[in-house]
Amino acid sequence: MATNFDFYFDFSSPYGYLASTQIEALAAEFDRQVNWHPILLGPMFKAMGSAPLVDIPLKGVYALHDFKRSATLYDIPYVQPQEFPISTVAAARALTYVQQAAPEKTASFAKKIFQAYFAEQQNISNAAAVLALAAETGLDTTVLADGMGRDSTKERLKLGVAQAMERGVFGSPFVFVDNEPFWGFDRFDHIRKWLRAQAQ
Amino acid sequence: MATNFDFYFDFSSPYGYLASTQIEALAAEFDRQVNWHPILLGPMFKAMGSAPLVDIPLKGVYALHDFKRSATLYDIPYVQPQEFPISTVAAARALTYVQQAAPEKTASFAKKIFQAYFAEQQNISNAAAVLALAAETGLDTTVLADGMGRDSTKERLKLGVAQAMERGVFGSPFVFVDNEPFWGFDRFDHIRKWLRAQAQ
Repeated sequence: MATNFDFYFDFSSPYGYLASTQIEALAAEFDRQVNWHPILLGPMFKAMGSAPLVDIPLKGVYALHDFKRSATLYDIPYVQPQEFPISTVAAARALTYVQQAAPEKTASFAKKIFQAYFAEQQNISNAAAVLALAAETGLDTTVLADGMGRDSTKERLKLGVAQAMERGVFGSPFVFVDNEPFWGFDRFDHIRKWLRAQAQ
Repeated sequence: MATNFDFYFDFSSPYGYLASTQIEALAAEFDRQVNWHPILLGPMFKAMGSAPLVDIPLKGVYALHDFKRSATLYDIPYVQPQEFPISTVAAARALTYVQQAAPEKTASFAKKIFQAYFAEQQNISNAAAVLALAAETGLDTTVLADGMGRDSTKERLKLGVAQAMERGVFGSPFVFVDNEPFWGFDRFDHIRKWLRAQAQ
């Protein structure tokens, strides 16, 4: 049976953003849908003794160049955020709540947040900014403001991150297709090739 | 004017090996040729505070899986070496010497070394193994044994690594096309898209 793609991402991840603009179309090529899983890279980098890409000597300069070039080559709007990376806890909690309370809005809300940060120069690190985007997505912001602050939501996100790590997730974007792991926007072509090979 | 591709690689790099099997064909698509530059990742990882991929928690397990899967998806023979990663100083010095003494053999010798290590389960970390492969490439092993041990060869390789880092190289494979930097076998499609865009 064709399972959904499990798509893990941090809202501060440029390649996660690029992936968010393409993953539904990729899934649709194979009659699949997408489960959207917000994660936080902080705890993962801690486990790996790693750091945000742009903070790494040599690699950081290249990364900034590659974000923009990758977007250009795939015709995806991209403006490097001035504040980068940022905390994405508020956004991840909001999406975690929406997944439960209004699951049909999950994808459009997630894409809205990514787009605001990486294409429209909005800082999405605080709750007020996230709620404004929720309003544009047609979500009830009074309910969401309450819901994203609840302990149960915080715990659910924490659990989601822990479960992702148990499953082997260590970066963003990270996609499981029938339990096969793919890390990076640059693995989208591999997903395509892999699924075609499975079908033979 | 169409310049050559500058291709930097460490002989212990799986993605460097995959790249070595495809880069001449990619360059030929655009009427280009390839300059082969052996480098050593050790000094680069030191500068970045990084480590070999497979030694990084979480990422290491995925990397081993991705090496093999990437090879399979591109129909490239691949057998994960049991000893991995290994020292590639001898191989890099040998190729550095051959670049000067018999430049026309550089590409075939480099491909032979990569293939021995990643497709034929040969450990290429010592000078004797490298010389055996040189013999199969039609090189004079007496001359090479002397040449690869010379101080001038050691210095030339050191200088090559330092110059690569100055240019921004921090990993393997790394390719410059008209001074535009591309890191990773997974950027070969980007090279193609980028060159097509330049031509328009």
